[in-house]
Amino acid sequence: MNRKIIKNVNILTMNKEKEIIENGVVAIRDNLIEAVGGAEILEKYKAEEIIDGRDGILMPGMINTHTHAAMVVFRSLGDDVADRLKKYIFPLENMLVDSSLVSLGSRYGIAEMLLSGVTTFTDMYYFEDEVAKAAKELGSRAVLGETVVDFPSPDCEESYGGLGYAEWFIEKWKKDELITPAVAPHAPYTNDSQHLQNAFLLSKKYNVPMIMHVAEMDFEIEKYKSEYNMTPVQYLDSIGVLDNNFIAAHLIHVTEEDINIIEKRDIGIAHNIGANSKAGKGVPPLKEMYGRGLKVGLGSDGPMSGNTLDIITQMSLVGKIHKLFNKDRTLFPAREIVEMATIGGARALNMDKYIGSIEVGKKADMAILETSSVNMQPIYDYYSTIVYSANAGNVDTVIVNGKILIKDKNFTEFNFAEVREELKKLREKIKKTAEKLV
Amino acid sequence: MNRKIIKNVNILTMNKEKEIIENGVVAIRDNLIEAVGGAEILEKYKAEEIIDGRDGILMPGMINTHTHAAMVVFRSLGDDVADRLKKYIFPLENMLVDSSLVSLGSRYGIAEMLLSGVTTFTDMYYFEDEVAKAAKELGSRAVLGETVVDFPSPDCEESYGGLGYAEWFIEKWKKDELITPAVAPHAPYTNDSQHLQNAFLLSKKYNVPMIMHVAEMDFEIEKYKSEYNMTPVQYLDSIGVLDNNFIAAHLIHVTEEDINIIEKRDIGIAHNIGANSKAGKGVPPLKEMYGRGLKVGLGSDGPMSGNTLDIITQMSLVGKIHKLFNKDRTLFPAREIVEMATIGGARALNMDKYIGSIEVGKKADMAILETSSVNMQPIYDYYSTIVYSANAGNVDTVIVNGKILIKDKNFTEFNFAEVREELKKLREKIKKTAEKLV
Repeated sequence: MNRKIIKNVNILTMNKEKEIIENGVVAIRDNLIEAVGGAEILEKYKAEEIIDGRDGILMPGMINTHTHAAMVVFRSLGDDVADRLKKYIFPLENMLVDSSLVSLGSRYGIAEMLLSGVTTFTDMYYFEDEVAKAAKELGSRAVLGETVVDFPSPDCEESYGGLGYAEWFIEKWKKDELITPAVAPHAPYTNDSQHLQNAFLLSKKYNVPMIMHVAEMDFEIEKYKSEYNMTPVQYLDSIGVLDNNFIAAHLIHVTEEDINIIEKRDIGIAHNIGANSKAGKGVPPLKEMYGRGLKVGLGSDGPMSGNTLDIITQMSLVGKIHKLFNKDRTLFPAREIVEMATIGGARALNMDKYIGSIEVGKKADMAILETSSVNMQPIYDYYSTIVYSANAGNVDTVIVNGKILIKDKNFTEFNFAEVREELKKLREKIKKTAEKLV
Repeated sequence: MNRKIIKNVNILTMNKEKEIIENGVVAIRDNLIEAVGGAEILEKYKAEEIIDGRDGILMPGMINTHTHAAMVVFRSLGDDVADRLKKYIFPLENMLVDSSLVSLGSRYGIAEMLLSGVTTFTDMYYFEDEVAKAAKELGSRAVLGETVVDFPSPDCEESYGGLGYAEWFIEKWKKDELITPAVAPHAPYTNDSQHLQNAFLLSKKYNVPMIMHVAEMDFEIEKYKSEYNMTPVQYLDSIGVLDNNFIAAHLIHVTEEDINIIEKRDIGIAHNIGANSKAGKGVPPLKEMYGRGLKVGLGSDGPMSGNTLDIITQMSLVGKIHKLFNKDRTLFPAREIVEMATIGGARALNMDKYIGSIEVGKKADMAILETSSVNMQPIYDYYSTIVYSANAGNVDTVIVNGKILIKDKNFTEFNFAEVREELKKLREKIKKTAEKLV
């Protein structure tokens, strides 16, 4: 048994009552939260380690509900280029993505998430076994879905090869404490109905998430309109693949009827406002979806689309962009946005029973934001400070599953500088290949 | 004569050709840029001090074209509250703002700007003499306009008292190397035409900027429509107060005819996307204004509205929000946004002859962004890295007028911690007063 105590922090519990405890104390026993309260905890419990939070803000670890972490190796390449998914990204991936690139990219991307207070992330990419190994190495919690597409992909020579890989991957990781394996058909338009149903059966068989990009693209909406006179959500429902294990990324172009389906099937929503706005794609009806109590979490999308992997950036954008589109400065007060970043994300992943808030009995996944940097003072409202003033660089301490991974803004064990130098070397190779595409 | 050399940096000159010099060198002589180039400079010049940029990005100091820095003391108070200018901010200011609050708030706010690489800012508030003294103490360049309003204000007991203060203030500071004094009628709707014309005459008499909030509010548009059948811009032109010394903040609700007037009168535009979106106010037709070559700079607005004072946050938002509203991911490529943050801002302030780019003969105002933090790698495009990945915490070194103010992310001389502790004390008093308003 190992016990740690965190003192001198202002705790945003994100429990049902949204309780805030100023000058609070948290006790962690092994990987679980044992006590949350005030100074009485210091008297009641003896700890191996006492962490001084230095008047920082202690919040639940943030949850990134949608990314492709390994794509960080391509960050800042081909931004602002039209029609780039098919003309740029897919070709680049086919030329370059292999297991070593995914291993390196994942380690770098997960490092970026942990340093920014993200303690659980949902990933869909190729070679997800490498992503799982990277998450384990760094100590992050993760939901990892192997991609399924209708063309040969970097890790499978035949079309839909991801399905076989996914089953092998799920078998391998299904009992892991930190990793939740999943299956991830890329999108409705890159999978036929038969294979979508096969993916769904796999998700049912193992009771694991099924992750997909849905209602993201203009051409996707047109395709399902002209072929089926349906929206993508209606199409997916008509072939019977939607249930409460389904995590849909984007859901930008959704109708009132779609929202009814999402509610009925209890689908998780990964809202990626940063990547969606940078791509000029559109703004989903989040006011309606959140207002109905749907399971809304925030995602960064891949760092070639969203360019950062932290969730603080997304919180800032959620507030500003939805207020703007609804012409209403009172919409989505900061507290609700912090909710999406924490317990909301946990709900989207069906993990809210054990992560997403600072409550006794939950896994000890949390982050401390320091309040000594210039942008963090004064504080009249902790939620406002996080949503409107903070940036990823303010995260000071990060704990996942009871283990201190980040302290004083640096890794306690992982050698980040080494991975950064490896990435710089890989950049030379990627740069030469990318130049052929422009 | 003092000479400094900066080496081992990747220089974004932001000159006319948008030249980038990798592994570049800059020589600074006293307060001016003496040479910009490569390793040859190291051989040619001897320096008292050599700064190793550690493979960082050297860019012109950023320009914040609109703020009310002292309002940082109110940051995170009353966010997400409806109709707050008249119900919340004005009453709060009348109860609390005095010269000592402005002095403290300005020192804190200017510290935040310098730490984030802002080397010139435009401010309009009360007790601008305190802001000027604070800017001098910290070493920042500034354009400072004393507010003029039609009601008694914190620094003047009678209506329009700001006009008298402004003339005294302009006389006092007009010869200063760092400070450009100005006059700042708050808005068309808080000044009658006679006093606006008096402010304009003052600006003409001393050849100083006239700064104003214009076309920001819904009610403002309605007022000028119903009273004059004009837009605010048309009204201001009709009373003859617009010229190339005029700096207009916001300009959200502008028509095609307004844009013609702005072009004809050569007005500077301070675009405050962050504050405007957080308030749900609207999105100006920046595509048209920038496309016509108007003088567009970026502003944070006051930190009670925009919550941060840095310009990197604004750059990120400019890209995303305008791409989204125009449904065009190719609009405003990152390079154009860095342009608005630097030489564009200098043009808006009519200071582009001596600041805004890294060119021989210009004032030595510049910032180095480190590239060792996790969010700053890999780099395939320096502009993309700054606009889409960087945050204020990545600024490492800041030089204003040839003087190194920030090194290794900390002040070289100014005691920031002392000011932060003073602010924490003031917060207690402000909190008690603010509670009466809710």
